[in-house]
Amino acid sequence: MKRIGILGATGYTAREVLYILLRHPEVEVSLLTSRRDDSPHVASVHPTLRGRLDLKLEPLDVPGLKGRVDAVFCCLPHGVSPEWIPQLLEDGIQVVDLSADYRLRDPAVYAEWYGGPHVDQDRLTDVPYGLPELFREQICGARLVANPGCYPTAATLALAPLLREGLIDPEDIVVDAKSGVSGAGRTPSLPLHFAECNESVAAYKVGQHRHTPEIEQNLRQTTGKDVQVIFTPHLMPMERGILATCYGRATTDATQKEILAMLRNFYEGEPFIHVTDELPATKDTAYTNFCHLTVRRVKGRILAISSIDNLIKGASGAAVQNFNLMCGFPEITALL
Amino acid sequence: MKRIGILGATGYTAREVLYILLRHPEVEVSLLTSRRDDSPHVASVHPTLRGRLDLKLEPLDVPGLKGRVDAVFCCLPHGVSPEWIPQLLEDGIQVVDLSADYRLRDPAVYAEWYGGPHVDQDRLTDVPYGLPELFREQICGARLVANPGCYPTAATLALAPLLREGLIDPEDIVVDAKSGVSGAGRTPSLPLHFAECNESVAAYKVGQHRHTPEIEQNLRQTTGKDVQVIFTPHLMPMERGILATCYGRATTDATQKEILAMLRNFYEGEPFIHVTDELPATKDTAYTNFCHLTVRRVKGRILAISSIDNLIKGASGAAVQNFNLMCGFPEITALL
Amino acid sequence: MKRIGILGATGYTAREVLYILLRHPEVEVSLLTSRRDDSPHVASVHPTLRGRLDLKLEPLDVPGLKGRVDAVFCCLPHGVSPEWIPQLLEDGIQVVDLSADYRLRDPAVYAEWYGGPHVDQDRLTDVPYGLPELFREQICGARLVANPGCYPTAATLALAPLLREGLIDPEDIVVDAKSGVSGAGRTPSLPLHFAECNESVAAYKVGQHRHTPEIEQNLRQTTGKDVQVIFTPHLMPMERGILATCYGRATTDATQKEILAMLRNFYEGEPFIHVTDELPATKDTAYTNFCHLTVRRVKGRILAISSIDNLIKGASGAAVQNFNLMCGFPEITALL
Amino acid sequence: MKRIGILGATGYTAREVLYILLRHPEVEVSLLTSRRDDSPHVASVHPTLRGRLDLKLEPLDVPGLKGRVDAVFCCLPHGVSPEWIPQLLEDGIQVVDLSADYRLRDPAVYAEWYGGPHVDQDRLTDVPYGLPELFREQICGARLVANPGCYPTAATLALAPLLREGLIDPEDIVVDAKSGVSGAGRTPSLPLHFAECNESVAAYKVGQHRHTPEIEQNLRQTTGKDVQVIFTPHLMPMERGILATCYGRATTDATQKEILAMLRNFYEGEPFIHVTDELPATKDTAYTNFCHLTVRRVKGRILAISSIDNLIKGASGAAVQNFNLMCGFPEITALL
Repeated sequence: MKRIGILGATGYTAREVLYILLRHPEVEVSLLTSRRDDSPHVASVHPTLRGRLDLKLEPLDVPGLKGRVDAVFCCLPHGVSPEWIPQLLEDGIQVVDLSADYRLRDPAVYAEWYGGPHVDQDRLTDVPYGLPELFREQICGARLVANPGCYPTAATLALAPLLREGLIDPEDIVVDAKSGVSGAGRTPSLPLHFAECNESVAAYKVGQHRHTPEIEQNLRQTTGKDVQVIFTPHLMPMERGILATCYGRATTDATQKEILAMLRNFYEGEPFIHVTDELPATKDTAYTNFCHLTVRRVKGRILAISSIDNLIKGASGAAVQNFNLMCGFPEITALL
Repeated sequence: MKRIGILGATGYTAREVLYILLRHPEVEVSLLTSRRDDSPHVASVHPTLRGRLDLKLEPLDVPGLKGRVDAVFCCLPHGVSPEWIPQLLEDGIQVVDLSADYRLRDPAVYAEWYGGPHVDQDRLTDVPYGLPELFREQICGARLVANPGCYPTAATLALAPLLREGLIDPEDIVVDAKSGVSGAGRTPSLPLHFAECNESVAAYKVGQHRHTPEIEQNLRQTTGKDVQVIFTPHLMPMERGILATCYGRATTDATQKEILAMLRNFYEGEPFIHVTDELPATKDTAYTNFCHLTVRRVKGRILAISSIDNLIKGASGAAVQNFNLMCGFPEITALL
Repeated sequence: MKRIGILGATGYTAREVLYILLRHPEVEVSLLTSRRDDSPHVASVHPTLRGRLDLKLEPLDVPGLKGRVDAVFCCLPHGVSPEWIPQLLEDGIQVVDLSADYRLRDPAVYAEWYGGPHVDQDRLTDVPYGLPELFREQICGARLVANPGCYPTAATLALAPLLREGLIDPEDIVVDAKSGVSGAGRTPSLPLHFAECNESVAAYKVGQHRHTPEIEQNLRQTTGKDVQVIFTPHLMPMERGILATCYGRATTDATQKEILAMLRNFYEGEPFIHVTDELPATKDTAYTNFCHLTVRRVKGRILAISSIDNLIKGASGAAVQNFNLMCGFPEITALL
Repeated sequence: MKRIGILGATGYTAREVLYILLRHPEVEVSLLTSRRDDSPHVASVHPTLRGRLDLKLEPLDVPGLKGRVDAVFCCLPHGVSPEWIPQLLEDGIQVVDLSADYRLRDPAVYAEWYGGPHVDQDRLTDVPYGLPELFREQICGARLVANPGCYPTAATLALAPLLREGLIDPEDIVVDAKSGVSGAGRTPSLPLHFAECNESVAAYKVGQHRHTPEIEQNLRQTTGKDVQVIFTPHLMPMERGILATCYGRATTDATQKEILAMLRNFYEGEPFIHVTDELPATKDTAYTNFCHLTVRRVKGRILAISSIDNLIKGASGAAVQNFNLMCGFPEITALL
């Protein structure tokens, strides 16, 4: 039985990790932390957990974790994780980091997109990127895994097979992504105020979203070539779900049917990826760890369209999937 | 041409007043104020007004309004209006006050529900309550009108005819009301965060909502007897609209059909009230100044069910309706 | 390993039963039926089940079920179940019936509310009503259980303790209930068309909803006295969830705190009922088998407010809970 | 005073035309038709019109319209309009056709995308396409105008200036569009069932939507060159609004600021087009006849992003705008 801690337990990704772990036969959630100083009961922060988990949120005290937990899910904000993760590792605690801090391998790219140098940058090149469908071997048995971003998960799963097989031009890719608002977190703000964002759709951070270099890094590793992605995120009037509509310039004569077959072959045996003939809807994957995925040939373009739940396969489900691989548990434990 | 000022122009009720006044042939909006100190253009605060109104929001300077505006719509928060309204009136400026400050006639009741004494309490007994369907005579030509609350509008329009005609027991009334979240204002907070309130319904402030004494005061004036109302507001996952499901104990043998006929008679000639055979939906009155209303007899109870747009008939549309009556314009101007 | 069939597998309650059973260690879903004659794959009807269940929907052939399944969840429309259930029982197949057909004990009441006589009415008085919190003993080991309606579940759980303890007048009860639209089923119609019901709230079937006699029957069994309920259902612009706001006339001087304590005592040990100090939101119980419940004293009334997921605790979760009790499995299996 | 008829008055576009015309000082709505044979009152079909318009829907009798109406808004389904429009014109009745039937100039293209030959194809080359911002001269005084599709309006307004100025490659354009579900009409179906499409986003008719040739025709007329558009429509969980995110390959070194200035110049004096620095949200234009529009330069691409209300600027508002131009009324009448 692994004793689990959740660092930064007040947000949505932490809550979803908790939901999943409550069904996990090999773990016991034994510690929750938050920056709030009133040590609230978890049920007052997450009312859905009333009667299901009896823990209070404690202030974050990393040195005190040694001996209390075997693994942590780190849901701290970007920039905070690297202050604590080195000590956690030193104390023998396994870490799934849900922040963006260990995803980018190049410290210069990190500094450019995240506003300054990385405080633990020597480790960057070694940390496995937790997308098991592409990097399962590195994840198995790892002590620290960088859990992918939600948009990069959707875009990478859609585009990687096309690039690996050389079906599209790596330097001419558009990712037009649509996300539910839970992806923006739980801190209230005017753009996330119900009366503002309900019945409304808008693009945001066009050309400037931090997931851009993460998508490009993933695809570059897949194809070995330079990759250029135009990434345009949009906010949808719904709680959860991402649809990534990805446009590549075809460099193949393969038919749509043949490309679908290649995709099915690429993902054969993957427990959480379904290549479909139909166009996926985000509702098809909501509240699950699955990714549904299809392709269309339109004129000279190949469109790859993927659907995930941004909070599950795009965050907390993937985190438990990675945790299972790190610990040697069956990959699907608690995720079906 | 009346020159109009909007005090507290950043919120939803101010915005809706602006929409309506842009269609009003007898007015010119000439001044907007806010507590923000950066004097933003109105279009940056309300993007729907891009290209339709070219004004900046100014800091509130009440003494400086004299000679600049003929009338103001006061959208300041509860408790702030009475600091400024006496001077506005002294300076000959007409005022429609959308706050709750001049609605309650009894200073003791105000003090109990609004947390302290009223700073302009001598005026309370004289200010017309701006529900034209009940108090049109007092509103016509008035210099100051207290614009009703959204819930009290819906509940009063539903229940007043039943009480006036003596069809229900005034001391045994339940008002179960459902409102869109715009009624809670534009300040971000966790309960109004999209990912929290979408796909969710909850009661709030049960037995403690400030609109309770306002509803009771209206109904008491209607019937001349003491009135007891259990008022339970609920938040709905939608932007706008109120449905008030009102339960009264029947003190009559009149059939449902007869009661509907009485209601139609009561509201005959009212431009904005429609008594319907069908059960009204909030969508039927959304973005309009209309109230749809029906009744049902169930066992020993009479149910009166009313639907309004909380921001229009429940706030800004009613405010312009009152303004029209105060100025002698046709009551429906800009409201159809 | 129990072999399970789902009769009428195209609707929402069948889909939710399937989700839950996929996590149930003691069962294998081995048969799905529908009235559609094209024998579609379950994943084409319920895209969320892609890759998780590999079955086609077969035409309903009740005599052919003998030996193929050990138990069925009967999700057939009202009026159809009693044509087949006698034979299923004769063939030794256990049945959880999610229709309304075996809920009402009095054939005359059934005939009045469901438009004609019951074709299997002799059985009515014997079938356990599947609300384990009130009737667990009868359910344990039963061969047929009538799964409760969604509204009756929410209303009964809220009101039963108050009536059992004699805290409210059984003849003066109002249940004002708010439901997500999935409760109305999966057949498209104008009132359930997105552009009609989004951003809208309305009451429906006021005084005429078939769940009224079911609620009254439950409460009558609780208190042993005659019960009169005014039941007003409302449609909310959300997929799932029921909030029941129940108003009873207090016949006690007990304080709110004391009543909450009585409720906690009443439901002590119940795995799926949480009595809360806070006002519950439907989101707190969405996608779970839990009921959250509180009370408020307001003037001479006691309000009991309950929240459930209409598809889970109000239908499919309760069905599996009943199934577990019928089979002697731990009651919470697959439901946490 | 023009007497107006609405043919096919039960749908959303007809309803929105009615809302607008009720505010139009120069018209009287005097006739509504539908294929329903029960001649319902308009308020029973469109409850929001209770008390605002007292007309019954009549069966369609085109020969009988002569002398009863001066102009009609034709909201009949695609394929039906051309059966009746020739006679209407012969009878001296002006027609704004909201169907797609007279939009495409090339009969072969029409036949390819709309499933067969056009029954009035000689007229196709002469009918003005009702996008005043591009074709105002042809619309003024016309007897028949083809009202544009919703997606083509959003995409054309965004892309036309870029193509006219030669800023992007006409053969490499992607239009990724997001629409509220009202665009799919009022006929109930499973994909538009609330519980299916709420909290869900999906692409549909990828590479096959009939608005594709309409967009390409508009842009070809703008630039004089061949145009290739990949058009991908998506359904959003909201009632109304279209956001078109359009990607063009830059053929210019102009900065984003310079391109914005060009756009402002292009649309100078247009009453309904606002070029904004900010990214537009569909809510900014909801319930208005405005289009908000901006551009972004990202790597080698220029993104043009436009927002309209699909039912107003994308249908009924544009129809009244065209009607105003046809009749010589001020273009903005009833539309502000």
